[in-house]
Amino acid sequence: MGDPATPPSSELAAMAIVDGASLKHPFSDRVPVRSIVCRPDGGAGLAGNRVRAGGWVKTGREQGKGSFAFLEVNDGSCPANLQVIVDAGVEELSTLVQTGTCVSVEGVLKVPPEGAKQKIELRVERVLHVGPTDPAKYPIPKTKLSLEFLRDHVHLRPRTNTISAVARIRNALAFATHSFFQEHGFLYVHTPIITTSDCEGAGEMFQATTLINEAEKLEKELIENPPPTEADVEAARLIVTQRGEIVAQLKDAKATRDDISASVAELKIAKENLSRLVERAKLKPGIPKKDGKIDYTQDFFARQAFLTVSGQLQVETYACAVTSVYTFGPTFRAENSHTSRHLAEFWMVEPEIAFADLQDDMNCAEAYVKYMCGWLLDKCFDDMELMAKLYDKGCIDRLRMVSSTPFERISYTEAVRLLEEAVKGGKEFEKNVEWGIDLASEHERYLTEDIFKKPVIVYNYPKGIKAFYMRLNDDSKTVAAMDILVPKVGELIGGSQREERYEVIQRRIAEMGTASRAI
Amino acid sequence: MGDPATPPSSELAAMAIVDGASLKHPFSDRVPVRSIVCRPDGGAGLAGNRVRAGGWVKTGREQGKGSFAFLEVNDGSCPANLQVIVDAGVEELSTLVQTGTCVSVEGVLKVPPEGAKQKIELRVERVLHVGPTDPAKYPIPKTKLSLEFLRDHVHLRPRTNTISAVARIRNALAFATHSFFQEHGFLYVHTPIITTSDCEGAGEMFQATTLINEAEKLEKELIENPPPTEADVEAARLIVTQRGEIVAQLKDAKATRDDISASVAELKIAKENLSRLVERAKLKPGIPKKDGKIDYTQDFFARQAFLTVSGQLQVETYACAVTSVYTFGPTFRAENSHTSRHLAEFWMVEPEIAFADLQDDMNCAEAYVKYMCGWLLDKCFDDMELMAKLYDKGCIDRLRMVSSTPFERISYTEAVRLLEEAVKGGKEFEKNVEWGIDLASEHERYLTEDIFKKPVIVYNYPKGIKAFYMRLNDDSKTVAAMDILVPKVGELIGGSQREERYEVIQRRIAEMGTASRAI
Repeated sequence: MGDPATPPSSELAAMAIVDGASLKHPFSDRVPVRSIVCRPDGGAGLAGNRVRAGGWVKTGREQGKGSFAFLEVNDGSCPANLQVIVDAGVEELSTLVQTGTCVSVEGVLKVPPEGAKQKIELRVERVLHVGPTDPAKYPIPKTKLSLEFLRDHVHLRPRTNTISAVARIRNALAFATHSFFQEHGFLYVHTPIITTSDCEGAGEMFQATTLINEAEKLEKELIENPPPTEADVEAARLIVTQRGEIVAQLKDAKATRDDISASVAELKIAKENLSRLVERAKLKPGIPKKDGKIDYTQDFFARQAFLTVSGQLQVETYACAVTSVYTFGPTFRAENSHTSRHLAEFWMVEPEIAFADLQDDMNCAEAYVKYMCGWLLDKCFDDMELMAKLYDKGCIDRLRMVSSTPFERISYTEAVRLLEEAVKGGKEFEKNVEWGIDLASEHERYLTEDIFKKPVIVYNYPKGIKAFYMRLNDDSKTVAAMDILVPKVGELIGGSQREERYEVIQRRIAEMGTASRAI
Repeated sequence: MGDPATPPSSELAAMAIVDGASLKHPFSDRVPVRSIVCRPDGGAGLAGNRVRAGGWVKTGREQGKGSFAFLEVNDGSCPANLQVIVDAGVEELSTLVQTGTCVSVEGVLKVPPEGAKQKIELRVERVLHVGPTDPAKYPIPKTKLSLEFLRDHVHLRPRTNTISAVARIRNALAFATHSFFQEHGFLYVHTPIITTSDCEGAGEMFQATTLINEAEKLEKELIENPPPTEADVEAARLIVTQRGEIVAQLKDAKATRDDISASVAELKIAKENLSRLVERAKLKPGIPKKDGKIDYTQDFFARQAFLTVSGQLQVETYACAVTSVYTFGPTFRAENSHTSRHLAEFWMVEPEIAFADLQDDMNCAEAYVKYMCGWLLDKCFDDMELMAKLYDKGCIDRLRMVSSTPFERISYTEAVRLLEEAVKGGKEFEKNVEWGIDLASEHERYLTEDIFKKPVIVYNYPKGIKAFYMRLNDDSKTVAAMDILVPKVGELIGGSQREERYEVIQRRIAEMGTASRAI
């Protein structure tokens, strides 16, 4: 990226510091739009400053009979645009005004005429760089586009208001996640992505392999360079025999040392050639097999390997040594489900705390959710306003509610009782409610959206619907598991206290048998 | 993990706040060892406080004819242990003193007798939980173990001084990375792990597939439930014909509507059965093929997919919309190289800045390296002291030097001149030095360790040894690329200004042809 190496002028350097804080991008001579327009005064206090700015034209229009142009320039540092004014004498305006044009400009910040929406605008004196677009071909016009349409223009969609806001929100939540756990003394652990373990059988796995590649390479090589026939091998074997006989004869004849050495050397070459041919004759196209099964000793890790479905097993070994840990990395499910709750690849956070019980677990999960919501309100308010406007009117109110309301905590048994009461009162669910069922999304949302109207933590689930490693409660029927349910989503977080009693977990494993694979 | 849910006593709650800051773990009732011993006074000021602590016994010994025991307890929150004293009346001592025993205890912090190494110790009044170890089987004794040995005990090695220090250092560097880029206005982007793009052909790729699994499932299914033979299909086809004839006869005979409907229904069933058999007869064991090649339309993503070797291409599309971005995620190379510089799976940081040139790139990379080193000195000094003691005497001095010394910046041409001069002066390298070569590790280390004795940034490399997308310099021989070389490591970071001129990059791609695949 970027325009040719233009050293920043000393004039610019002098202007870089405003109000004691650097306006400028730390590693380029551009000023992020955010530093100009996202100030309490909307940037008005910066009038008179000379700056360089770069970004992409959202909309542009020529004015005053083509004597100047207004450009709305966005650089993704915030949802707001910078209004930029270019005179016809400075640059060809017809190129600049096209949506999507990349511009890098230098000029002076000015307060616009009264009545303007923006509080500051940039009067351009030099255009440093233009990356033009062909309006006939540029696929992201200024009109509103469907998210489905944007899926076919993945490389350009970050230039839309929605996707750039999503990028900023996702960035904020990722960093907030690290900040939360670091502030609370957790260590970030990178658990393996390629693994041979299947956790609790959380889902279908992708296989990570080099076998197919290697087989294809070999197949190509065998076509270009066919393997030796049996006759070739026999011929090579014959040469070895002959050379061996020659050596024997020379020795019997007490030939000179040099002659013997020379014939021994030839024998050696013949033997090497034979063994090379024997090896090559074994090569077969296709994936290597042994006893009718795929021979994974030939795979990269000399065994069958998969993409992780969860780092839990690995990070637990760290919790049992350094007490408080979390993972935050990609996980994979090869499930052929096309719902909004299934992804083939997604990033997951998995904290583990030693010496903690279910209460501690719930406290941690609740604190985490509140921290995330508070962080969004604090750092991404303008992006959330965009989301509220375009997609979900209530999202800001919901963030406020979740970040400030203590979560309701009810046992699974109580949750089922409340749902059964609702059914008696006339509420209809698609799936029947009875003690022992895995709550469906409709049940979860009814609890959090209708009954409590706030986040709900349901705990102590029936052991039959949860993983084998969750701590068995004294009733022998439920385990110390919990799920956090939130309005509009349903289940957001699941957790449990792990079974620490060796004989209990042994019994549970025996009880569940291979059933644990099917959870 | 953890002992049964014991609610913290009110007495404990009252003790939780010391010096205005919470001593306690935020989500359990234990106090991290770090909060006790890693204070400027070594914990002496906490004498008299009642606390709960949990961890694993590093070493233990019975004293006073078995009347009490000293335990060195580590919980991984810092390299230091907490000295714990347990009287024989409180708990069976012989179990507690075994290395590896998990203990959770409650007691009062006391200042030890004069002359003791530690500044504070815990006098135990209650043992809340013991997770015993069998000393005959526990594979991590207190004696020093080789790193190679520990590879066979991956699940327990975080309990060693070295691996827990590495975990804390890696955690610190990961969070420092996020902090650095967030402070400087970069957005964290999660680029895809499973991808169809090969970046610049950075290395051999792992394939991510469900084809083998599906083939194995099918193979098993076909054994349990063999596909129909040709005769089966013929028989089914015959039934369809017969049923069709019956329908025709009934219609000709003007049979009742009910009779006709019934026979049409039977015909439909027969047809469905036939098409099911025809489909099943097509099933073949093995990976699905089409025209002699693997049929990837049958794979999970309906095309061949791989694990990413770099998120660069994808994150560049974000830089061209939101200006400053970085990735930090796992990347994969299926290279069969067993050197300390090759890993099949590793985490990589890839920043991209729009509107920046090579100088900006070097400034960013240098600032990042300095920030990392400063962070380690600031937050991980005790762990670095352990590293200095056990593995690398000079590591702390080197961190200080790198974090405070401006990096030398020299062109590749100048670097080659200096190396050639060294050769003239008698220095011997395994690989010959001449303009145009890719600098070998020995050359890089000589530049940084011997000539400059500090980090060196080499820039403007010959275009022939760098990727096609790097910006061509005006000399048409070099590109705006840079590598950071540091003592003891060699190349630490590589970067470049990207080519923004469309016609130049087109020419470069044509010039390099398929060669770019081989870089």
